[in-house]
Amino acid sequence: MNKVVRRIWIPAALALLLAPTLRAQSLDAAIRAQIVQVLTDQQTAWNQGDIVTFMHGYDDSPQTTFIGKSIEHGYQMILARYQRNYVSREAMGQLDFSGIDVRMLGPENNPTHAVVTGHFHLARSQAGGGDASGIFSLIFEKKPSGWKIILDHTSS
Amino acid sequence: MNKVVRRIWIPAALALLLAPTLRAQSLDAAIRAQIVQVLTDQQTAWNQGDIVTFMHGYDDSPQTTFIGKSIEHGYQMILARYQRNYVSREAMGQLDFSGIDVRMLGPENNPTHAVVTGHFHLARSQAGGGDASGIFSLIFEKKPSGWKIILDHTSS
Repeated sequence: MNKVVRRIWIPAALALLLAPTLRAQSLDAAIRAQIVQVLTDQQTAWNQGDIVTFMHGYDDSPQTTFIGKSIEHGYQMILARYQRNYVSREAMGQLDFSGIDVRMLGPENNPTHAVVTGHFHLARSQAGGGDASGIFSLIFEKKPSGWKIILDHTSS
Repeated sequence: MNKVVRRIWIPAALALLLAPTLRAQSLDAAIRAQIVQVLTDQQTAWNQGDIVTFMHGYDDSPQTTFIGKSIEHGYQMILARYQRNYVSREAMGQLDFSGIDVRMLGPENNPTHAVVTGHFHLARSQAGGGDASGIFSLIFEKKPSGWKIILDHTSS
């Protein structure tokens, strides 16, 4: 093989070898961005006192699960729980997510699910119940309408 | 179509229609049984005071995650945490899982993951720290060595 051919051949072979990995990485990066956007949208809705829009992050299904003090099933149950526990803007406070980590689940070339871990912090007045914080793990599922939470486990 | 043909044709057509669903259901049932077995084996090991064997339910990977009071990563970290928090048979008590629910994640004909929710109860003497109980959500991944926990979120 002469030098010119080698100069072309080696990078080309490397590119071919790396292509599936790079494709998977850029797919993962795109999904990660979509999921982080869902959480950002939730945070924005919460901080505007809009629980109904906040709920759009969850899959609208009777199977959707929220684990807090107990295990509850169903989008409507979860919505009702938020509305019951956060009756005012003061009780909702200012929500902040941090330490977000996204891990893909399912086939590498087509992840169907992802698990997201992170921390939440609620800055609240004494009247609102005082500051609160904790940890969450969320399972996201790829739906026709986008990435949606199918299970939320939140603990303090 | 005469009566005899109809009598054969309708069940045959129904069988064809239902076959993929039934196949998925029996696959799910098989996976469910394998996952429940992992939990049963964990319970047995725990109740024999054998944390090392209990740990076989987890994926032996630095990515394996345990969420309790904080988010910790790595099989060795999780093992060390159990060994630190449960120093004696008395502190380990008698473990019992209940209300186990398994939900498949990934392609229907080839689930790659599953999420398992349930309750745990630890019957312990006062000296052992007294009874303890709580809720868990576990993400299982299908590995060459079987179904393994890649994330455990346990809260009380």
